[in-house]
Amino acid sequence: MYSYDRLYRFTYAVFTSLGCSEEHAAIATRGLIAADIRGIDSHGVARLSGYVRLWEAGRVNANPAIRIVHETPSTAVVDGDAGLGLVVAPFAMQVAIDKAKIAGTGWVSVRNSNHFGIAGHHAMMALEQDMIGMAMTNASALVAPTFSVERMLGTNPIAVAIPAGEQPPFVADFATTTAANGKLEILQRKQADTPLGWVQDRQGHPSTDANILKKQGALLPLGSDRDHGSHKGYALGSIVDIFSAVLSGASYGPWAPPFPAYVPMPENMPGEGLGHFFGAMRVDAFRPADEFKQHMDNWIARFRLARPAEGHEKVLIPGDPEREMEIIRMKEGIPLVDSVAADLEQLATRFSLTL
Amino acid sequence: MYSYDRLYRFTYAVFTSLGCSEEHAAIATRGLIAADIRGIDSHGVARLSGYVRLWEAGRVNANPAIRIVHETPSTAVVDGDAGLGLVVAPFAMQVAIDKAKIAGTGWVSVRNSNHFGIAGHHAMMALEQDMIGMAMTNASALVAPTFSVERMLGTNPIAVAIPAGEQPPFVADFATTTAANGKLEILQRKQADTPLGWVQDRQGHPSTDANILKKQGALLPLGSDRDHGSHKGYALGSIVDIFSAVLSGASYGPWAPPFPAYVPMPENMPGEGLGHFFGAMRVDAFRPADEFKQHMDNWIARFRLARPAEGHEKVLIPGDPEREMEIIRMKEGIPLVDSVAADLEQLATRFSLTL
Repeated sequence: MYSYDRLYRFTYAVFTSLGCSEEHAAIATRGLIAADIRGIDSHGVARLSGYVRLWEAGRVNANPAIRIVHETPSTAVVDGDAGLGLVVAPFAMQVAIDKAKIAGTGWVSVRNSNHFGIAGHHAMMALEQDMIGMAMTNASALVAPTFSVERMLGTNPIAVAIPAGEQPPFVADFATTTAANGKLEILQRKQADTPLGWVQDRQGHPSTDANILKKQGALLPLGSDRDHGSHKGYALGSIVDIFSAVLSGASYGPWAPPFPAYVPMPENMPGEGLGHFFGAMRVDAFRPADEFKQHMDNWIARFRLARPAEGHEKVLIPGDPEREMEIIRMKEGIPLVDSVAADLEQLATRFSLTL
Repeated sequence: MYSYDRLYRFTYAVFTSLGCSEEHAAIATRGLIAADIRGIDSHGVARLSGYVRLWEAGRVNANPAIRIVHETPSTAVVDGDAGLGLVVAPFAMQVAIDKAKIAGTGWVSVRNSNHFGIAGHHAMMALEQDMIGMAMTNASALVAPTFSVERMLGTNPIAVAIPAGEQPPFVADFATTTAANGKLEILQRKQADTPLGWVQDRQGHPSTDANILKKQGALLPLGSDRDHGSHKGYALGSIVDIFSAVLSGASYGPWAPPFPAYVPMPENMPGEGLGHFFGAMRVDAFRPADEFKQHMDNWIARFRLARPAEGHEKVLIPGDPEREMEIIRMKEGIPLVDSVAADLEQLATRFSLTL
């Protein structure tokens, strides 16, 4: 078990070793470890060495001049200057929040960025301001559209965080695929198969091989197949791609830059880097905040009481599992699988740090 | 076959018979028949008698004073005064568009409304202004959240319309369930079963009974079951419910007013009528419109060329099937199943009209 503080100090030291300013290192570290603490193990320190390799490959700028390149009262486009997405995203989300303070809502599309960690962490920045927060991002192409065998979209997640009063907030954060890539990684380690409907092979046939992405297979959009609504998951992933990358001038669809540094960049990229999209809506731009939060409490309480199906104890509200995990891990620490711990030890050696 | 003009004249006459103004009757008729012409048969004239019954039950106000009750530079709340959703929705979407002209984006939450037809029709209003349009609505509860047997959410559709240049626009319009209710109705007429994963019975067991909603069964959220991401469909439907009804002061979740006029209204409703949510984003609030549209053309062209899977001719872009249907039906006319034609004949008799 690794305590939050221990992982924080180590990660912070790695980021400053790359040349990040203290401020940026702190922001990036908070964002990265938010994933570990909330139980999204695939997006936390397990990715730290991946970020370092991108920096080594010259694809991450440790000292970015992040800036607004275009704006209106309720919108902005931010250029991330090839910075860590973990740093660019909170900057852009803050712009959205500042716009919302004056215009009621704020919407920011980002280009020239990199992987931003978990979407929910950024969306949740809005909560303390009594705002609804939204965050989405495009990502390297691993997903085949309905009727296709070609990988055209990333897992393109959507996060929406909605404040409540007495109740904890509603926080949805999900890939627009049937299963996120991180779930495949867990099955790979266990040498287990996936359920049918998560992936297809290179010919487009149903598959249960958790390693199929290494064999030119593809993840499937939410819905799995046409009969079960995969065209809706494909549409959602496309909307995330367009809002994040076509609106901002980032690289989109099959041209999105790959996360693994050893994968060559696509040719003829139509824009710069990865794209993100953020939104903030002031609750009292619609109705008094107290009134809204009282009704959110009522909404949440009523859904918690929805009659459970046989074999299930209760209905969950989006955000419940991650919040429960956060309480446990802040107390008991964060478990790391051996390969991730070894990865961090290598980084420690590389930068003369101790884990 | 019924021509567009013939159905238009008849529907318009029915709406004016209810007491709608000529302007409102024209708006409502255009919205309703947009569904028939685009091939969403469940939401077109097939619903006309349902609207009339709601009017007879005093739940639809034929002469609503639709008004903005709260606003900021980029937001508004609209009270539909219990009008037809088909009339309230274009009013609210126009408010969103007008806000976007000045603030860059416009976001309108609506309370005290009724069923608004197909979401895509309203979202598409933004296209001719070089704006991205969004429309969503809550609806009577037919959907059980993941792990539940209780119907808590409507099919709560989301529509997003995005302009392109040479290419036709990208228009996604989908229920946040695995299958829309209209698809069950088609199977009922054919006395056919549903695929597994569309519905569950009253105990929450998998079912293929297309009539299961009459037996206290439920529709399933997009994803069908937990293993295939139904918690994501449940989250999406919840977000639509909250944006449409909790933000505006409409009735939400299991308290959403039912569409069939014979179903009694829920007790202790926490708000007024159905809720909708609309958004308009000026494309040039992010980057020059020509540039954006050129990249959308590139996006669409590239996705059309995605390598198809065996047995499939090509990959579709959201909006393709409906646009192709519109071309066919404007030329050849709109087919109506016998029960719908008989329904319209009854309305003709009722209001002394000829079909």
